[in-house]
Amino acid sequence: MGRGVTGPSLIGGVILTELRQIVDKRGAVLHMLRSDGPDHVPMGECYFSEILPGAVKAWKRHRLQTQNLAVPVGRVRLIVYDDRESSSSHGTVETYTLGRPDAYFRVRIPAGLWYGFSCVSETSALLANCTDRPHDPSESDARSLDDPAMPAVWGPSGAVEHQS
Amino acid sequence: MGRGVTGPSLIGGVILTELRQIVDKRGAVLHMLRSDGPDHVPMGECYFSEILPGAVKAWKRHRLQTQNLAVPVGRVRLIVYDDRESSSSHGTVETYTLGRPDAYFRVRIPAGLWYGFSCVSETSALLANCTDRPHDPSESDARSLDDPAMPAVWGPSGAVEHQS
Repeated sequence: MGRGVTGPSLIGGVILTELRQIVDKRGAVLHMLRSDGPDHVPMGECYFSEILPGAVKAWKRHRLQTQNLAVPVGRVRLIVYDDRESSSSHGTVETYTLGRPDAYFRVRIPAGLWYGFSCVSETSALLANCTDRPHDPSESDARSLDDPAMPAVWGPSGAVEHQS
Repeated sequence: MGRGVTGPSLIGGVILTELRQIVDKRGAVLHMLRSDGPDHVPMGECYFSEILPGAVKAWKRHRLQTQNLAVPVGRVRLIVYDDRESSSSHGTVETYTLGRPDAYFRVRIPAGLWYGFSCVSETSALLANCTDRPHDPSESDARSLDDPAMPAVWGPSGAVEHQS
C-alpha cells in the first residue's frame, strides 16, 4: 500500500501505462487512449469526474465494465481493493497517486475490483474514464466509505488510513 | 460570428450537443460521449489539450478524422472556418465559447473544416477530444495564425478580431 505508480500493479488484472505528454508553451497535448494501441480495449463511453479538494468518491465495483482512468488536471488518490475469492491477490489494497507531470498514467481496472478516489490537490481534480462499454447501472455495485466489509482507508479529507 | 452555443451551427456538418452534468457536493460527473448514443460515431482516440491562459492553438484541418470536442475545465473559444468550395456555408466563420456550467457542449466538427481554439479563462483550460479514428499526421493540415488565406480572428491573447 502507498507505493508510487511506476511498475506493475500488485493486483491481478490492473495495468498501469505511462501516457505521453507533448508539452509546448501553449499547453500540453495529453494522450489518453487510442483504439489501435497495444492494450486496446473497445471504447464504450468517455466521461469525466470532477473531484473537489478533499472529496472522496468510493466505493464502486463493476461486474462487466473495464475502467481506464487518467488524471489530466489536479492530483488524485486512487485506491483499488481486491476481494475476489479466486484471486491470487485476494485481500490486497493498492493506492496510486495520479497527476501530472510525474504520474500521468492510465490505470486499467478490470471488472470485479472495488475502487474509489479522492482529490488530494488544493484545487479540483479531473479524472477521465474511457470504459469499454457504455454505462449501465445494473452492472455496478456501490458501498459506502464506512462499510465494515471494506478497508478503512479513507480518512478525513481523503487522507489514507491504514487498515486495522 | 460571436454567437452563443445554443441552437444548431451555421456551418454544415457541425453539431452541438448539450452534455449532462450530474452535480453533487463532491464534484460533478460530466458526460462526454458514449458509443450507443443517438449521434454515435466510432471512438478512435481520446486525448486532451491543455491550453494556458491567453494561448491560441490554430489552425488545424483533418481530411478524414471527425473531432468531438468538449471543455470540462476552464473556458475555451473555439473558432471554425468553412472554406469548402462545395459547401452551402462556404466562407462562414463561427465562434463558440465553451465551458461549464452554462456551455458544457460537445461540438462535432466533421473532416474538411478548419478550426482552432484559445483559452479565455484566467486559469488553464482543458479541451477533450474523442475522435472517430486514431491520430494519423498524414491526414491533417496546419496553417499558422497569421496565414493570409485564413480569417484574422485571433487577436492578442486570443481575443477575437473581426474579419476585414
